[in-house]
Amino acid sequence: MRRGEVLQIIDPFGRQVADVMAFDLHDHRARLSSGRTLDYAATTRLTLGHTLYSNRSQPMFTIVEDTLGRHDFLLTPCSQDTFRILYGSDEPHPSCLANLAAALAPHGISEDDIGTTFNVFMNVEIASDGSLRVLPPLSHAGERIALRAECDLLVGLTACSAEQSNDYAFKPIDWTVLKPR
Amino acid sequence: MRRGEVLQIIDPFGRQVADVMAFDLHDHRARLSSGRTLDYAATTRLTLGHTLYSNRSQPMFTIVEDTLGRHDFLLTPCSQDTFRILYGSDEPHPSCLANLAAALAPHGISEDDIGTTFNVFMNVEIASDGSLRVLPPLSHAGERIALRAECDLLVGLTACSAEQSNDYAFKPIDWTVLKPR
Repeated sequence: MRRGEVLQIIDPFGRQVADVMAFDLHDHRARLSSGRTLDYAATTRLTLGHTLYSNRSQPMFTIVEDTLGRHDFLLTPCSQDTFRILYGSDEPHPSCLANLAAALAPHGISEDDIGTTFNVFMNVEIASDGSLRVLPPLSHAGERIALRAECDLLVGLTACSAEQSNDYAFKPIDWTVLKPR
Repeated sequence: MRRGEVLQIIDPFGRQVADVMAFDLHDHRARLSSGRTLDYAATTRLTLGHTLYSNRSQPMFTIVEDTLGRHDFLLTPCSQDTFRILYGSDEPHPSCLANLAAALAPHGISEDDIGTTFNVFMNVEIASDGSLRVLPPLSHAGERIALRAECDLLVGLTACSAEQSNDYAFKPIDWTVLKPR
């Protein structure tokens, strides 16, 4: 994506999650940072008007549209290890990490470079005692969020492979990149 | 640190915070991961018995002692950019990121490699609407936490430089590494 372009992510059927990872197009060591973003936004509920920052504290995205207002930026993309540790399964399973890594490998990105993703439509409840529960997404068909690129970006995006996150739906995610007006 | 050794972190005067970063001693691309840890622990309140994981889902530390039970693993270490963005100050200021980067540079670690740290004694309140408030630490003099290394580790540790996090105390943090019995 070029600066000023807008990534629109749409849940066409509802109840699906999409993990987003991003790197500075011209220097991949600058990457999307959950910790910087949460610190500057002073909230875990990122929505319209919030900025997503890199590890270098540079603005990467601004949320310019958000019909739902419920996304996660605490958790890493699901991986083969997630299914082993959380689900007790060693069977081969598609995962958000493997999807992102495969899509980004031609650009020189490895699994190690893919940290905490911005998990669009992911419904993570934080209880008053700090405990976390991954609940079915609240998104309905047509729900969407739009992220404006604040610099030139390499972006990875995947529909979610984790049963718990997408309520056993395994549905697609649609996306489009809108040019600046 | 070698596997089995225990890092004991002590707040000698109370109300101070210590940011911890760690890398696999034999492969620095494997590093402490907030996202993996929160996902597997299913809580933001990490305390006795919890494991801190790497981005590769390998156990790095187990918390084997914790007199307070209030630490943060959401936020990145304070940096010059933190003071600019959150405090509105461009004046030179010591920071946890600069301290960690300076200490780790001889080992080939750069600022880009230092993501979300485990922030011992940092008191971050998550309200029911998701908003985050950095409150004075609840630690009293002598408060301590002990982290057992689950693999050979390169560890960075710094007392905190941010007024908001340490209640304008800027006190020292003590630490010791205990050999396995």
